[in-house]
Amino acid sequence: MSVLSSHVRGEWVTPDGAEGRPMADAVTGEEIGRLATDGIDMAAVAGYGRRVGGSALRELSFHERASLLKALAGHLREHREELYAVSARTGATKGDSKFDVDGGIGVLQVYASLGKRELPASGPWLDGDVVPLSKGGTFLAQHLYTPLQGVAVQVNAYNFPVWGPLEKLAPALLAGVPTIIKPATPTAFLTAELVRLIVESGLLPDGAVQFLAGSTGDLFDHLTEQDLVSFTGSASTARQLRTHPVLSARAVRFTAEADSLNCSILGPDATPGTPEFDLYVTQLVTEMTVKAGQKCTAIRRAFVPAAQADAVVEAVREKLAKVVVGDPSAEGVTMGALAGLEQREEVRRSLKSLTDAAEVVFGDPEQVEVTGADAQRGAFLSPVLLRASGDSAAVHEVEAFGPVSTVVPYASTAEVVELAARGQGSLAGSVVTADPEFAREVVLGTAPWHGRLLVLDRDDAKESTGHGSPMPQLVHGGPGRAGGGEEMGGLRGVAHHMQRTAVQGSPDMLAAITGRWVPGSVRTVTDEHPFRKHLEDLRPGDTVVGGPRRVTEADVEHFAEFTGDTFYAHLDAEAAAANPFFGERVAHGYLVVSFAAGLFVDPAPGPVLANFGVDNLRFLTPVKFDDELTITLTAKQISPRASAAYGEVRWDAEVVNAAGEPVAKYDVLTLVAKRDA
Amino acid sequence: MSVLSSHVRGEWVTPDGAEGRPMADAVTGEEIGRLATDGIDMAAVAGYGRRVGGSALRELSFHERASLLKALAGHLREHREELYAVSARTGATKGDSKFDVDGGIGVLQVYASLGKRELPASGPWLDGDVVPLSKGGTFLAQHLYTPLQGVAVQVNAYNFPVWGPLEKLAPALLAGVPTIIKPATPTAFLTAELVRLIVESGLLPDGAVQFLAGSTGDLFDHLTEQDLVSFTGSASTARQLRTHPVLSARAVRFTAEADSLNCSILGPDATPGTPEFDLYVTQLVTEMTVKAGQKCTAIRRAFVPAAQADAVVEAVREKLAKVVVGDPSAEGVTMGALAGLEQREEVRRSLKSLTDAAEVVFGDPEQVEVTGADAQRGAFLSPVLLRASGDSAAVHEVEAFGPVSTVVPYASTAEVVELAARGQGSLAGSVVTADPEFAREVVLGTAPWHGRLLVLDRDDAKESTGHGSPMPQLVHGGPGRAGGGEEMGGLRGVAHHMQRTAVQGSPDMLAAITGRWVPGSVRTVTDEHPFRKHLEDLRPGDTVVGGPRRVTEADVEHFAEFTGDTFYAHLDAEAAAANPFFGERVAHGYLVVSFAAGLFVDPAPGPVLANFGVDNLRFLTPVKFDDELTITLTAKQISPRASAAYGEVRWDAEVVNAAGEPVAKYDVLTLVAKRDA
Repeated sequence: MSVLSSHVRGEWVTPDGAEGRPMADAVTGEEIGRLATDGIDMAAVAGYGRRVGGSALRELSFHERASLLKALAGHLREHREELYAVSARTGATKGDSKFDVDGGIGVLQVYASLGKRELPASGPWLDGDVVPLSKGGTFLAQHLYTPLQGVAVQVNAYNFPVWGPLEKLAPALLAGVPTIIKPATPTAFLTAELVRLIVESGLLPDGAVQFLAGSTGDLFDHLTEQDLVSFTGSASTARQLRTHPVLSARAVRFTAEADSLNCSILGPDATPGTPEFDLYVTQLVTEMTVKAGQKCTAIRRAFVPAAQADAVVEAVREKLAKVVVGDPSAEGVTMGALAGLEQREEVRRSLKSLTDAAEVVFGDPEQVEVTGADAQRGAFLSPVLLRASGDSAAVHEVEAFGPVSTVVPYASTAEVVELAARGQGSLAGSVVTADPEFAREVVLGTAPWHGRLLVLDRDDAKESTGHGSPMPQLVHGGPGRAGGGEEMGGLRGVAHHMQRTAVQGSPDMLAAITGRWVPGSVRTVTDEHPFRKHLEDLRPGDTVVGGPRRVTEADVEHFAEFTGDTFYAHLDAEAAAANPFFGERVAHGYLVVSFAAGLFVDPAPGPVLANFGVDNLRFLTPVKFDDELTITLTAKQISPRASAAYGEVRWDAEVVNAAGEPVAKYDVLTLVAKRDA
Repeated sequence: MSVLSSHVRGEWVTPDGAEGRPMADAVTGEEIGRLATDGIDMAAVAGYGRRVGGSALRELSFHERASLLKALAGHLREHREELYAVSARTGATKGDSKFDVDGGIGVLQVYASLGKRELPASGPWLDGDVVPLSKGGTFLAQHLYTPLQGVAVQVNAYNFPVWGPLEKLAPALLAGVPTIIKPATPTAFLTAELVRLIVESGLLPDGAVQFLAGSTGDLFDHLTEQDLVSFTGSASTARQLRTHPVLSARAVRFTAEADSLNCSILGPDATPGTPEFDLYVTQLVTEMTVKAGQKCTAIRRAFVPAAQADAVVEAVREKLAKVVVGDPSAEGVTMGALAGLEQREEVRRSLKSLTDAAEVVFGDPEQVEVTGADAQRGAFLSPVLLRASGDSAAVHEVEAFGPVSTVVPYASTAEVVELAARGQGSLAGSVVTADPEFAREVVLGTAPWHGRLLVLDRDDAKESTGHGSPMPQLVHGGPGRAGGGEEMGGLRGVAHHMQRTAVQGSPDMLAAITGRWVPGSVRTVTDEHPFRKHLEDLRPGDTVVGGPRRVTEADVEHFAEFTGDTFYAHLDAEAAAANPFFGERVAHGYLVVSFAAGLFVDPAPGPVLANFGVDNLRFLTPVKFDDELTITLTAKQISPRASAAYGEVRWDAEVVNAAGEPVAKYDVLTLVAKRDA
């Protein structure tokens, strides 16, 4: 049987003469191919990624890398039927395949969109605001992110051969860090198919993605402080990798996402007949059977009020009885095979430990009726529902990574919070209740042990993505047993691939380094109003000063009448005097910013197309009658949009009174046309 | 000699009959005391911290914990002379002691202020905005932080016996996580004095701070997924702790901050006679001599343009020749002793490795003239300046943790960036230049290897805190050799002690869990205008609806004339038609928000004292003439201030037109009086 090719150093490589580790069709048991990386120079692979892939990716802007992700998503979407076809051989139903393939493409899309919307068009990505460090304002700091100049080694689990690699690739690529994909043995043939599509697309720079069809060999021995390892898989392998001598000696970033004993909690309000009771039962059966329960996030512990335990067991049994196990391509089959015979043996072993303390209330671990396939050769297993007391240690410690869940009764909110914690760290949990107070107590009580918590009720059920679905916008990972890692979470996952550095300096230096105008740095006032400049001609620091304009009692009274804003502080001298902040009548804040606009706006048609917003407006000193206002407006950040004839310009606005005291500070947001569009 | 007491489980404990490890006066060599923790039940210590200290801290709000930090800072400030006195016995000059003691107190103050200013008065700390997850808006998510329910084991270095523990304590305590302080042997007697002051203050809840005057024994064997370890010290100890089997098995959070081969880079522009040349030389001498160079952040590698190397060496030698080494309490002494004789031996060993490749250009590693002390018994060492080529491997690998630095010439910007990276990860670096382009290239080029970078020039020199000073507002830590950790960084350091969890649910559920109004959750409209309600009576969701109000051509023309904002889109039909966003004349955005205020404001004196700002204002749909505006204002977040008669209320403002399209969205910020103040 043929050995799969690895894609390294810009080409497909197949080891000569290696026997390799076999992969089998989960449904038929037939051998599909073999895995071996013998003879691949792992130091050279890492070096190629850093030198060729990393350099090429870092040459691109965030927006350009986001465009690559978008294009890649489109390419994979076009070819997804090819992936579904191969996916079926992992034991997946069509629904399972979509979960894996479409889910993975969805992650690319979300990161593409985040990259364009939230990350800068040029210059480094800034973290937080400018930090003032001195009274005189000559010494400031700014945290910023730069891409790690290493490779991201991504060790994937067998249960999501497409989603897993893409979920790790998307944030790495957006950050500008090249990837080395290491798939898990049983389903590596599907990941190989994914990589084939990626390589054939020709979209990504050479070296941005490499693929090891087999062991990582001595790759870890060659990692450096600029590399990182993202692992998804078992807790025991996570432990082993985490303590690798090179990783610890060089403090190589390591993140793990391990399957955990996730729980779902039914609220005391959710008695039979309520929508939440039905939602709970349906979700539990879904989590048991999707991907044949081979999800790191699947529900292993189903906590239900003691009074409801019998009813829940009965309702779940009823639904499980309708599950049809068999060849995913056969008519009527609703649950496929496990990833392989070894995996099934592992689940059966775990079930033995569990059944010492738990009662089997549905299913037979040793046999199952199979539709359209050979029950002996395929890795089929019946869904198995257990019932146990919360005192049972095994329920909180032993994970059967298949279509297995245990119903555990609880007596009180405090007890169920404590039971949830006994899982020692979980990726995901859910609370099914219509009682906000119960939801609040359980969520805040169990959050320290969870990366993600879902509150499911009649209001969100229709749109909810469910207990078991990690979302690219949300963190994925959990403490303790769940690996102690964090992936995705929108831009948080991008930051995990970058170094955060605090840069200290003078305002002018920080402005030069960040490409933004920084308070205290040079303002450039010229004869030309900056609103006359096109996007390409505008520079951070370009400034217009307007005013002074006197604010009279008549102005304030007129504005009150005109707008209807007759708040006493503007009109009633006695009441204003009693106000702790004013002491006398003052101008409206909205009057101040309206007058300010009158002072800085250049009225004739020109490159400035619109004011689309204002940020961080603070009224700092009340404006008394006959105060004079002066406005200084300075271009702060200039963000061209690649696909539009304009870009966004953020202006720093500062209004002062005649004494030079700050009256208002804010950011004005405008759209400015490009000269050459 | 007496064994120091540990403070565990609410009392001071001294082991019976243990011999212990001796600590010596760094100046006289005299034994000060001994360290032993024999017989202390470490599992019970950890349990006490979690159960007693953790529970008590979590009962308090962020603001209450911030007040504790403030009070503690005040107490230590009052007693700082006691700390200075003990500090002198570590070999520290008065300046060194202030750096350590006052610096530590400063960290408490900064965290106290951050806690009050930036963290919520009640409810969980939210991370980021609400994340929309569905089209219909019934399914959303919010990331939030909850305190880890474990203990923070803080293993400190010997060089900052006061600052070190306080720098770790402040963010932990603010997060609500109890601390176990483990000092380093040579200077544990000073940390013991600090803990004595903390305990005697009676300010902190029982169990919030425990102190081990000696080894941690088997403490690490008892850590769980809710605990964390923060280590400062040598890279080799960091490696050892990081791979502790319990830490890896339970994914215990581990952060390390290790001394590193930090560099300082002189710009090519900074020739002799420029302010930057002088700043560079002065800073280098300061970093070599403060704390006798025993700073994790000290400059070990001084990169200078080849053409300037001789001049730099000469200038540094000149200044070093004026350094007076001796008993810190003796007249005229400017550099004290190393922490102990062992530390001096260690520096001499490192110097031997370095001098194989580097030339000694100042100082004698084996002898030094000492003022006011016995050169044999005290741990005195001469400042030693070396000069070497950048090719020398030892310069980038061997750290002499004392008053030692090496001048290394470089030829180009690219070369110096590459040389900096050869340190394999640093805590801090500095660039001394007046050339913004050089600063930008070097900062962005070396940032991936640095936790903090300082750009020093004539503009910020006067207010700069210097190369070697970590700031509580900025991240402290660095990749690779520097430990791969991150501490402080303002609230980032608080987050490191908390679990981040993504909570998914319906708007009403998220509102109940977070205590904030969430878009889509219930709005409560009653006969009573919410501006009539005092802070205690106001609830998230309390709403007022105002309007409709028609916006006429006359309104717009009048507003333009009144404010002076005569932008063409408001007045010139032809030009407005050519604008890609408007198509016809539109109302001013500032007119819209002014009218909106007129519609929602309740004018009579009442609990609402002032509108102090506006956030996130976005103009979404242009307002055409004769459009009608309706405003909905909903209380979103209510934040009482503990020490004031009022609090802050953030309101969600949404303006729609007659077609129900959103015209503007923003947050209105008001100050609202308490009923009972």
